[in-house]
Amino acid sequence: MVSVGSEIEVLLDRRVQACRAKDIDRLMSLYSPSIVYFDVVPPLRLTGSDAVRDNFVRWFNEYDGPIGLETHDLNIAASGDVAFAHMLHLDKGNANLSEQQSKRGFWLRSTVCCQRSNNEWLITHEHISLPVDFRTGAVLMDLVP
Amino acid sequence: MVSVGSEIEVLLDRRVQACRAKDIDRLMSLYSPSIVYFDVVPPLRLTGSDAVRDNFVRWFNEYDGPIGLETHDLNIAASGDVAFAHMLHLDKGNANLSEQQSKRGFWLRSTVCCQRSNNEWLITHEHISLPVDFRTGAVLMDLVP
Repeated sequence: MVSVGSEIEVLLDRRVQACRAKDIDRLMSLYSPSIVYFDVVPPLRLTGSDAVRDNFVRWFNEYDGPIGLETHDLNIAASGDVAFAHMLHLDKGNANLSEQQSKRGFWLRSTVCCQRSNNEWLITHEHISLPVDFRTGAVLMDLVP
Repeated sequence: MVSVGSEIEVLLDRRVQACRAKDIDRLMSLYSPSIVYFDVVPPLRLTGSDAVRDNFVRWFNEYDGPIGLETHDLNIAASGDVAFAHMLHLDKGNANLSEQQSKRGFWLRSTVCCQRSNNEWLITHEHISLPVDFRTGAVLMDLVP
Protein backbone atom coordinates (compact mmCIF):
# COMPACT_ATOMS: atom_id res chain seq x y z
CA MET A 1 0.00 0.00 0.00
CA VAL A 2 1.31 3.42 -0.98
CA SER A 3 1.31 5.93 1.89
CA VAL A 4 -0.56 9.21 1.46
CA GLY A 5 2.70 11.10 1.94
CA SER A 6 4.25 9.21 -1.00
CA GLU A 7 1.25 10.04 -3.18
CA ILE A 8 1.76 13.75 -2.45
CA GLU A 9 5.50 13.37 -3.13
CA VAL A 10 4.67 11.91 -6.55
CA LEU A 11 2.24 14.75 -7.27
CA LEU A 12 4.84 17.37 -6.31
CA ASP A 13 7.46 15.67 -8.43
CA ARG A 14 5.09 15.72 -11.43
CA ARG A 15 4.41 19.39 -10.75
CA VAL A 16 8.10 20.34 -10.90
CA GLN A 17 8.76 18.11 -13.94
CA ALA A 18 5.85 19.69 -15.83
CA CYS A 19 7.09 23.20 -14.94
CA ARG A 20 10.63 22.43 -16.12
CA ALA A 21 9.31 21.02 -19.41
CA LYS A 22 6.74 23.86 -19.76
CA ASP A 23 4.08 21.18 -20.30
CA ILE A 24 0.97 23.21 -19.53
CA ASP A 25 -1.57 20.38 -19.98
CA ARG A 26 0.37 17.99 -17.74
CA LEU A 27 0.79 20.75 -15.16
CA MET A 28 -2.87 21.79 -15.18
CA SER A 29 -3.97 18.15 -14.75
CA LEU A 30 -2.61 18.45 -11.17
CA TYR A 31 -4.80 21.44 -10.24
CA SER A 32 -8.41 21.52 -9.10
CA PRO A 33 -10.84 23.50 -11.33
CA SER A 34 -11.52 25.65 -8.25
CA ILE A 35 -7.84 26.31 -7.45
CA VAL A 36 -7.09 29.48 -5.44
CA TYR A 37 -3.58 30.64 -6.29
CA PHE A 38 -1.42 33.32 -4.59
CA ASP A 39 1.50 33.96 -6.98
CA VAL A 40 4.71 36.02 -6.67
CA VAL A 41 3.26 38.57 -9.10
CA PRO A 42 -0.18 40.27 -9.26
CA PRO A 43 -3.10 39.92 -9.02
CA LEU A 44 -3.51 39.43 -5.28
CA ARG A 45 -5.27 36.13 -5.97
CA LEU A 46 -6.03 33.96 -9.01
CA THR A 47 -9.17 31.81 -8.92
CA GLY A 48 -9.99 28.88 -11.21
CA SER A 49 -8.10 26.85 -13.82
CA ASP A 50 -8.39 29.34 -16.66
CA ALA A 51 -6.72 32.18 -14.76
CA VAL A 52 -4.04 29.85 -13.36
CA ARG A 53 -3.33 28.34 -16.80
CA ASP A 54 -2.88 31.81 -18.36
CA ASN A 55 -0.55 32.76 -15.52
CA PHE A 56 1.61 29.63 -15.97
CA VAL A 57 1.89 30.28 -19.72
CA ARG A 58 2.93 33.89 -19.00
CA TRP A 59 5.61 32.52 -16.64
CA PHE A 60 6.81 29.84 -19.11
CA ASN A 61 7.34 32.59 -21.72
CA GLU A 62 9.85 34.35 -19.46
CA TYR A 63 12.37 31.52 -20.09
CA ASP A 64 14.17 30.99 -23.39
CA GLY A 65 14.78 27.30 -22.72
CA PRO A 66 13.52 24.88 -20.07
CA ILE A 67 12.88 26.30 -16.59
CA GLY A 68 15.62 25.59 -14.06
CA LEU A 69 13.60 24.62 -11.01
CA GLU A 70 14.88 22.75 -7.96
CA THR A 71 13.00 21.73 -4.81
CA HIS A 72 14.73 21.93 -1.41
CA ASP A 73 13.68 21.39 2.21
CA LEU A 74 10.44 19.65 1.30
CA ASN A 75 8.08 18.89 4.18
CA ILE A 76 4.76 17.05 3.70
CA ALA A 77 1.82 16.53 6.11
CA ALA A 78 -1.14 14.39 5.03
CA SER A 79 -4.16 12.87 6.75
CA GLY A 80 -7.37 11.48 5.28
CA ASP A 81 -8.23 13.60 2.25
CA VAL A 82 -6.21 16.72 3.07
CA ALA A 83 -2.48 17.40 2.69
CA PHE A 84 -0.10 20.31 2.60
CA ALA A 85 3.55 20.69 1.71
CA HIS A 86 6.06 23.48 2.03
CA MET A 87 9.40 23.79 0.30
CA LEU A 88 11.91 26.20 -1.19
CA HIS A 89 12.46 26.42 -4.93
CA LEU A 90 15.63 27.57 -6.64
CA ASP A 91 14.53 29.16 -9.92
CA LYS A 92 17.12 29.61 -12.70
CA GLY A 93 17.03 30.90 -16.27
CA ASN A 94 14.45 33.71 -16.17
CA ALA A 95 15.20 35.96 -19.16
CA ASN A 96 13.74 39.04 -17.41
CA LEU A 97 16.66 39.09 -14.99
CA SER A 98 20.28 40.14 -15.46
CA GLU A 99 22.42 37.35 -16.96
CA GLN A 100 24.24 36.92 -13.66
CA GLN A 101 21.04 36.77 -11.58
CA SER A 102 19.38 34.47 -14.10
CA LYS A 103 22.33 32.01 -13.96
CA ARG A 104 22.66 32.16 -10.19
CA GLY A 105 18.91 31.85 -9.77
CA PHE A 106 16.82 33.04 -6.84
CA TRP A 107 15.01 31.34 -3.96
CA LEU A 108 11.23 31.21 -3.70
CA ARG A 109 9.01 30.00 -0.84
CA SER A 110 6.32 27.54 -1.94
CA THR A 111 3.27 26.14 -0.11
CA VAL A 112 1.12 23.55 -1.90
CA CYS A 113 -2.22 22.40 -0.43
CA CYS A 114 -4.05 19.33 -1.76
CA GLN A 115 -7.39 17.59 -1.38
CA ARG A 116 -8.44 14.09 -2.44
CA SER A 117 -11.73 13.60 -4.22
CA ASN A 118 -12.83 10.38 -6.03
CA ASN A 119 -9.47 8.81 -5.15
CA GLU A 120 -7.58 11.58 -6.93
CA TRP A 121 -5.33 14.13 -5.23
CA LEU A 122 -5.44 17.62 -6.73
CA ILE A 123 -3.85 20.92 -5.72
CA THR A 124 -6.64 23.19 -4.46
CA HIS A 125 -4.44 26.00 -3.14
CA GLU A 126 -0.91 27.20 -3.87
CA HIS A 127 1.10 30.12 -2.49
CA ILE A 128 4.44 31.23 -3.95
CA SER A 129 6.35 34.31 -2.79
CA LEU A 130 9.52 36.30 -2.32
CA PRO A 131 10.31 38.29 0.83
CA VAL A 132 10.29 42.08 0.55
CA ASP A 133 11.89 45.03 2.27
CA PHE A 134 8.90 46.83 3.72
CA ARG A 135 10.68 50.17 4.29
CA THR A 136 12.39 50.55 0.91
CA GLY A 137 9.60 48.80 -1.03
CA ALA A 138 12.13 46.51 -2.74
CA VAL A 139 11.82 42.82 -3.61
CA LEU A 140 14.63 40.72 -2.13
CA MET A 141 16.01 38.29 -4.69
CA ASP A 142 19.42 37.56 -3.20
CA LEU A 143 18.37 35.82 0.01
CA VAL A 144 19.66 32.32 0.58
CA PRO A 145 18.32 29.61 2.93
CA MET B 1 -19.85 17.29 18.34
CA VAL B 2 -17.75 20.16 17.02
CA SER B 3 -16.65 19.73 13.39
CA VAL B 4 -12.96 19.86 12.59
CA GLY B 5 -13.59 22.87 10.33
CA SER B 6 -15.14 24.76 13.27
CA GLU B 7 -12.14 23.93 15.45
CA ILE B 8 -9.84 25.47 12.82
CA GLU B 9 -12.15 28.49 12.55
CA VAL B 10 -11.85 29.01 16.32
CA LEU B 11 -8.04 28.69 16.13
CA LEU B 12 -7.87 31.25 13.30
CA ASP B 13 -10.13 33.63 15.19
CA ARG B 14 -7.88 33.35 18.27
CA ARG B 15 -4.88 34.01 16.02
CA VAL B 16 -6.30 37.27 14.67
CA GLN B 17 -7.55 38.41 18.11
CA ALA B 18 -4.11 37.79 19.63
CA CYS B 19 -2.43 39.72 16.78
CA ARG B 20 -4.79 42.69 17.18
CA ALA B 21 -4.17 42.77 20.94
CA LYS B 22 -0.41 42.17 20.49
CA ASP B 23 -0.72 39.33 23.01
CA ILE B 24 2.46 37.42 22.20
CA ASP B 25 1.94 34.56 24.70
CA ARG B 26 -1.63 33.92 23.56
CA LEU B 27 -0.49 34.06 19.93
CA MET B 28 2.48 31.72 20.41
CA SER B 29 0.23 29.16 22.21
CA LEU B 30 -1.32 28.52 18.76
CA TYR B 31 1.99 27.61 17.07
CA SER B 32 3.90 24.33 17.09
CA PRO B 33 7.44 24.43 18.57
CA SER B 34 8.64 23.25 15.13
CA ILE B 35 6.74 25.91 13.14
CA VAL B 36 8.15 26.74 9.68
CA TYR B 37 7.17 30.32 8.84
CA PHE B 38 7.46 32.18 5.51
CA ASP B 39 6.85 35.86 6.33
CA VAL B 40 6.43 38.99 4.16
CA VAL B 41 9.88 40.16 5.24
CA PRO B 42 13.25 38.34 5.46
CA PRO B 43 14.64 35.87 6.23
CA LEU B 44 13.49 33.46 3.55
CA ARG B 45 12.24 31.13 6.26
CA LEU B 46 11.87 31.19 10.04
CA THR B 47 12.08 27.89 11.92
CA GLY B 48 10.99 27.22 15.50
CA SER B 49 9.04 29.14 18.17
CA ASP B 50 11.87 31.39 19.30
CA ALA B 51 12.50 32.87 15.85
CA VAL B 52 8.78 33.22 15.15
CA ARG B 53 8.14 34.88 18.54
CA ASP B 54 10.91 37.44 17.95
CA ASN B 55 9.49 38.16 14.50
CA PHE B 56 5.97 38.74 15.85
CA VAL B 57 7.32 41.11 18.51
CA ARG B 58 9.24 43.01 15.80
CA TRP B 59 5.96 43.29 13.85
CA PHE B 60 3.89 44.35 16.89
CA ASN B 61 6.37 47.21 17.50
CA GLU B 62 5.60 48.68 14.08
CA TYR B 63 2.15 49.75 15.34
CA ASP B 64 1.58 52.58 17.83
CA GLY B 65 -1.77 51.18 18.98
CA PRO B 66 -3.57 47.88 18.38
CA ILE B 67 -3.07 46.22 14.99
CA GLY B 68 -5.92 46.74 12.54
CA LEU B 69 -6.30 43.24 11.08
CA GLU B 70 -9.30 41.90 9.19
CA THR B 71 -9.81 38.45 7.64
CA HIS B 72 -11.62 38.13 4.30
CA ASP B 73 -12.40 35.27 1.89
CA LEU B 74 -11.53 32.56 4.39
CA ASN B 75 -11.49 29.00 3.07
CA ILE B 76 -10.79 25.97 5.30
CA ALA B 77 -10.09 22.32 4.40
CA ALA B 78 -9.67 19.75 7.17
CA SER B 79 -9.50 15.95 7.36
CA GLY B 80 -8.25 13.69 10.14
CA ASP B 81 -5.31 15.45 11.77
CA VAL B 82 -4.35 17.85 8.97
CA ALA B 83 -5.96 21.14 7.92
CA PHE B 84 -5.13 24.19 5.86
CA ALA B 85 -6.78 27.55 5.40
CA HIS B 86 -6.23 30.45 3.05
CA MET B 87 -7.51 33.99 3.39
CA LEU B 88 -6.77 37.63 2.71
CA HIS B 89 -5.92 40.04 5.51
CA LEU B 90 -6.46 43.80 5.46
CA ASP B 91 -3.70 45.27 7.64
CA LYS B 92 -4.14 48.83 8.98
CA GLY B 93 -2.14 51.10 11.26
CA ASN B 94 1.49 50.24 10.47
CA ALA B 95 3.57 53.25 11.56
CA ASN B 96 6.29 52.53 8.97
CA LEU B 97 3.94 53.53 6.16
CA SER B 98 2.72 56.96 5.04
CA GLU B 99 -0.25 58.19 7.12
CA GLN B 100 -2.56 57.72 4.15
CA GLN B 101 -1.34 54.18 3.38
CA SER B 102 -1.43 53.24 7.05
CA LYS B 103 -5.07 54.41 7.39
CA ARG B 104 -6.19 52.80 4.14
CA GLY B 105 -4.30 49.61 4.96
CA PHE B 106 -2.97 47.03 2.52
CA TRP B 107 -3.97 43.50 1.52
CA LEU B 108 -1.90 40.44 2.40
CA ARG B 109 -2.26 36.82 1.30
CA SER B 110 -2.24 34.33 4.16
CA THR B 111 -1.99 30.51 4.21
CA VAL B 112 -2.18 28.73 7.57
CA CYS B 113 -1.47 24.98 7.87
CA CYS B 114 -2.35 23.01 11.01
CA GLN B 115 -1.79 19.57 12.49
CA ARG B 116 -3.54 17.87 15.42
CA SER B 117 -1.46 16.08 18.01
CA ASN B 118 -2.75 14.84 21.43
CA ASN B 119 -6.18 16.29 20.58
CA GLU B 120 -4.71 19.76 20.13
CA TRP B 121 -4.58 21.66 16.84
CA LEU B 122 -1.46 23.78 16.31
CA ILE B 123 -0.19 25.84 13.39
CA THR B 124 2.85 24.01 11.97
CA HIS B 125 3.33 26.16 8.86
CA GLU B 126 2.32 29.69 7.88
CA HIS B 127 2.96 31.70 4.72
CA ILE B 128 2.22 35.45 4.44
CA SER B 129 3.10 37.56 1.40
CA LEU B 130 2.59 40.55 -0.84
CA PRO B 131 2.78 40.36 -4.64
CA VAL B 132 5.75 42.05 -6.32
CA ASP B 133 6.57 43.61 -9.66
CA PHE B 134 9.32 41.35 -10.95
CA ARG B 135 10.65 43.77 -13.58
CA THR B 136 10.82 46.94 -11.48
CA GLY B 137 11.67 45.08 -8.25
CA ALA B 138 8.90 46.94 -6.39
CA VAL B 139 6.53 45.63 -3.72
CA LEU B 140 2.87 46.15 -4.65
CA MET B 141 0.91 47.48 -1.68
CA ASP B 142 -2.08 49.03 -3.46
CA LEU B 143 -3.64 45.88 -4.92
CA VAL B 144 -7.23 45.15 -3.94
CA PRO B 145 -9.11 41.81 -4.13
